[in-house]
Amino acid sequence: MPDLPEMLRGAGVSPGIGAGPVRTIADSVPEPPAGARHAGDAAAEKATAQDALEAVAADLEGRGERAAELGNEEGREVLGAQALMARDPGLADAVSTRIDGGTAAARAVFEAFGVYREMLAGAGEYLAARVSDLDDIRDRAIARLLGLPMPGVPESDEPFVLVARDLAPADTALLDPALVAAFVTEEGGPTSHTAILARTMGVPAVVALPGATELPEGTPVLVDGGAGTVRVGPSEEEVAAARGVASARDSLLTESSGPGATKDGHRIPLLANIGGPRDVEAALANGAEGVGLYRTEFLFLDRSTPPGDDEQEAAYREVLRAFPEGRVVVRTLDAGADKPLAFLPPPGEEPNPALGERGLRLSRVHPEVLRAQLAALARAAEGLPARLEVMAPMVTGVEEAEFFAESCRAAGIDRPGVMIEVPAAALRARDLVTEVEFFSIGTNDLTQYACAADRQIGGLAGFQDPWTPAVLDLVAMTAGPAAEAGKGCGVCGEAAGDPALACVLAGLGVTSLSMSAPSLPLVRAALSRHTLEECRRAAEAARSARTAGQARTAAREMLPALAELGL
Amino acid sequence: MPDLPEMLRGAGVSPGIGAGPVRTIADSVPEPPAGARHAGDAAAEKATAQDALEAVAADLEGRGERAAELGNEEGREVLGAQALMARDPGLADAVSTRIDGGTAAARAVFEAFGVYREMLAGAGEYLAARVSDLDDIRDRAIARLLGLPMPGVPESDEPFVLVARDLAPADTALLDPALVAAFVTEEGGPTSHTAILARTMGVPAVVALPGATELPEGTPVLVDGGAGTVRVGPSEEEVAAARGVASARDSLLTESSGPGATKDGHRIPLLANIGGPRDVEAALANGAEGVGLYRTEFLFLDRSTPPGDDEQEAAYREVLRAFPEGRVVVRTLDAGADKPLAFLPPPGEEPNPALGERGLRLSRVHPEVLRAQLAALARAAEGLPARLEVMAPMVTGVEEAEFFAESCRAAGIDRPGVMIEVPAAALRARDLVTEVEFFSIGTNDLTQYACAADRQIGGLAGFQDPWTPAVLDLVAMTAGPAAEAGKGCGVCGEAAGDPALACVLAGLGVTSLSMSAPSLPLVRAALSRHTLEECRRAAEAARSARTAGQARTAAREMLPALAELGL
Repeated sequence: MPDLPEMLRGAGVSPGIGAGPVRTIADSVPEPPAGARHAGDAAAEKATAQDALEAVAADLEGRGERAAELGNEEGREVLGAQALMARDPGLADAVSTRIDGGTAAARAVFEAFGVYREMLAGAGEYLAARVSDLDDIRDRAIARLLGLPMPGVPESDEPFVLVARDLAPADTALLDPALVAAFVTEEGGPTSHTAILARTMGVPAVVALPGATELPEGTPVLVDGGAGTVRVGPSEEEVAAARGVASARDSLLTESSGPGATKDGHRIPLLANIGGPRDVEAALANGAEGVGLYRTEFLFLDRSTPPGDDEQEAAYREVLRAFPEGRVVVRTLDAGADKPLAFLPPPGEEPNPALGERGLRLSRVHPEVLRAQLAALARAAEGLPARLEVMAPMVTGVEEAEFFAESCRAAGIDRPGVMIEVPAAALRARDLVTEVEFFSIGTNDLTQYACAADRQIGGLAGFQDPWTPAVLDLVAMTAGPAAEAGKGCGVCGEAAGDPALACVLAGLGVTSLSMSAPSLPLVRAALSRHTLEECRRAAEAARSARTAGQARTAAREMLPALAELGL
Repeated sequence: MPDLPEMLRGAGVSPGIGAGPVRTIADSVPEPPAGARHAGDAAAEKATAQDALEAVAADLEGRGERAAELGNEEGREVLGAQALMARDPGLADAVSTRIDGGTAAARAVFEAFGVYREMLAGAGEYLAARVSDLDDIRDRAIARLLGLPMPGVPESDEPFVLVARDLAPADTALLDPALVAAFVTEEGGPTSHTAILARTMGVPAVVALPGATELPEGTPVLVDGGAGTVRVGPSEEEVAAARGVASARDSLLTESSGPGATKDGHRIPLLANIGGPRDVEAALANGAEGVGLYRTEFLFLDRSTPPGDDEQEAAYREVLRAFPEGRVVVRTLDAGADKPLAFLPPPGEEPNPALGERGLRLSRVHPEVLRAQLAALARAAEGLPARLEVMAPMVTGVEEAEFFAESCRAAGIDRPGVMIEVPAAALRARDLVTEVEFFSIGTNDLTQYACAADRQIGGLAGFQDPWTPAVLDLVAMTAGPAAEAGKGCGVCGEAAGDPALACVLAGLGVTSLSMSAPSLPLVRAALSRHTLEECRRAAEAARSARTAGQARTAAREMLPALAELGL
């Protein structure tokens, strides 16, 4: 372990203590040398190449099935699409043509995949994020052909700390939460895939830790996902002490039960973000008072026609039944951008899908899909005591808010709202508030657009910080007019699950907080230990800062009880 | 001409009167039927297909050379890259494989191109804008093989009105301004390629006109690019009258000479946006008082190494010499997004380049390029009377402004500034202003990010309107702190060239306006006919509105003299 400092610091994005040996996601597969030729039997070489591609496809499919068994439908979709790519006949042709010309199978695979990239690169084109799927298939096929270790998540029978440059959905679809003690990545920020996954799984995580992948395989480490530290080679006593602190914190958390409120009794309902009925159990277990963001995309993914009316109604009703006394805020279909749907393609090619025809914009192009969803929601709520609220994603101006509210009321839904995630909507919340019953601020996208920095790019993590003072200004500009109009203004981005930021949001005038279920206890505890006045002073201190880092530090100084929670 | 209304209305984006017969950009080439087979001689069919692809490549190259002769270097680059694609060996392989299997040449070309698209589509991927270049090559090759008319700009010896769904750079690289009386497109908005091109060429243009491409070929039309109207089948008298009004407006414009100022003498310097020394002549001819935006990308495009120090210095010095008494505001290299550079690639693949590592973000990854540019700028200004100001693109927070100002001062440049085009920067102008000497608001990108709507997508033109009240709020939030600090705040987006909006910007506290040279006379005339108080009232009326359309109408009511100019 040459020159490894004993304590490494990154950004803690999912609290908790995890200890175990380092297991690193295997390095990339090397490029087969140019000019590599086969022994002369082209037919045999072609068969070997096709067998390798087919084996990769079958393996991906198998992993997809196992992901589905673990309840990860999205993982199954991603892996299934990759399997289709591995079986693409055009690709097979391109490989065979090269082998006929004498090229060795591994090199032929490398070059055939390369054609797709070069073609687009030659057109001055950027390749988009999911082209890494293409590289993954290529590397798996080449690893098979050359007898190299398969890239991807390591196999292990004992708990380990998973270390990687960054985690992709394909890496994590098969992870067994019982075996992963913690995540540590070199890249990523608070809204990266790794961070969101870690909080959803309840696994401690530290991201943005330079040099993480240089930790030798098997090194024992102690990860503190709250403090953002990784202790290299901890003693048994240190691990025990850290676990003791974590367990004391757990007891504190257990004491903080009941509805969300500040120390002086100002109510801030604490709600859960869910992706479907399967997430209800964790929400209830963590004391969610309702659902603040019900993402409905799971009903629409990977199908060539919209879901049937009955299927939709049943999925909504199941969630509404689970919260007989609570609110359930459903977001209408948020297709487009990084969530394309087969039957709802954007009207044209989009060089920047995040700035494209997504969310309500796409719903207006296909009004029949929106009408069917609203009708199913109205029927689902009939006769149930839960309060149904329905909101539109990606609303920009007052005219869209008006359109959506009218559509809801025409369907018999009397509590329409809008997501505030576009800066123009936050700036003009005073205009939008007259059209709807509530706002819900999506801090992830709002930060992405306000700072013009893609959430999907690790290198821009510094710009994706919801503590950015300008983002706090936009939250205040949204919450203020809502309060004046006597209407609710929630936050349902990842920011709501950060205990310190949750207090600041309450101080900015936000009226409810919705987050991944495992974040609820810590936020409940943090709120219950501070008065509303303390939250307001923390908010003021944060907005007086000039950078995100200064805002975080200034706010924490005003929130003394965070230390009791080890935060 | 069945049921054609006599007067069509769209959005006028480049003023002036143009009349002539309609010439439409040819329709797309149809898909060759699936299953089309050749007569049996695969070798001959393959030769035909390769000849067609080579002819397309040669034609594109030839058009590129002609574009270069017309001074359009960028056109040459685009067309040259297309020629490379047409000669891609992987593509040739894929075509040949299909012809060997019996498929007819045209269908084989169609399918071979299709593989590239399907592959990515199968990966859940969006194809990005420039993949239309791929379609263009495919269509040209198929048109050759099937004996169909070639897609693209029509040939004509007499002036005509060019009608299209939208204009792409490849369509317009070869246009002769003397033969194009006007542009009319179905799609596009005020910041679309068509609009910017039209203003640069001084050609009247109406965009966002539904049904434009249904106008029969040869129909005489009268286009008013100020009013946004297209009169179908005008009488000779109508054409003469319209030209009379236009000519009266021209005289009014000629009367408005000298420095930019409101009627009551409040100075608003009027500057030109230029892309290199070749644009200086038009700037001077239109009375520019200096340069408000010198885009330096032309020096860096299409080369594998940065330009030499002497080459840079000479290009900067030539412009500084041309304005001995004026300001020259140079923007440092704005690479990334839609302007990738071969020697400065973004550090990773970018799913949304407009939200990626562009502008100053990329300069921080490659500080040696920024240092060399600043040093060349400092040397270029030595001993010249012009006032050199240097600004960074895509600044997000105060820490970047500080970094850039320090870099400038270290190079001996004492007037550093920042572009305000990211919403977070506008919201926090009060923090940024302490670090720099001036702001320049880029309304195109600011609108794109504030409304989260891609400038490149015609279908989102409604969201790209700089009259959007939230955008006007951001301008006011930027201009206010600059005025308090006694520093300048210019606007250099397309908004500055809209005469009504220019008055509103002055009313919001903007201190200079920079635009395409042909827009200068009309803006000068509009400003000179209104007092600063009228401009302020117009700004207030616009900010009191709830939509962009209402803002435009409300402001115009406060600017009575616009009508004198036929606006």
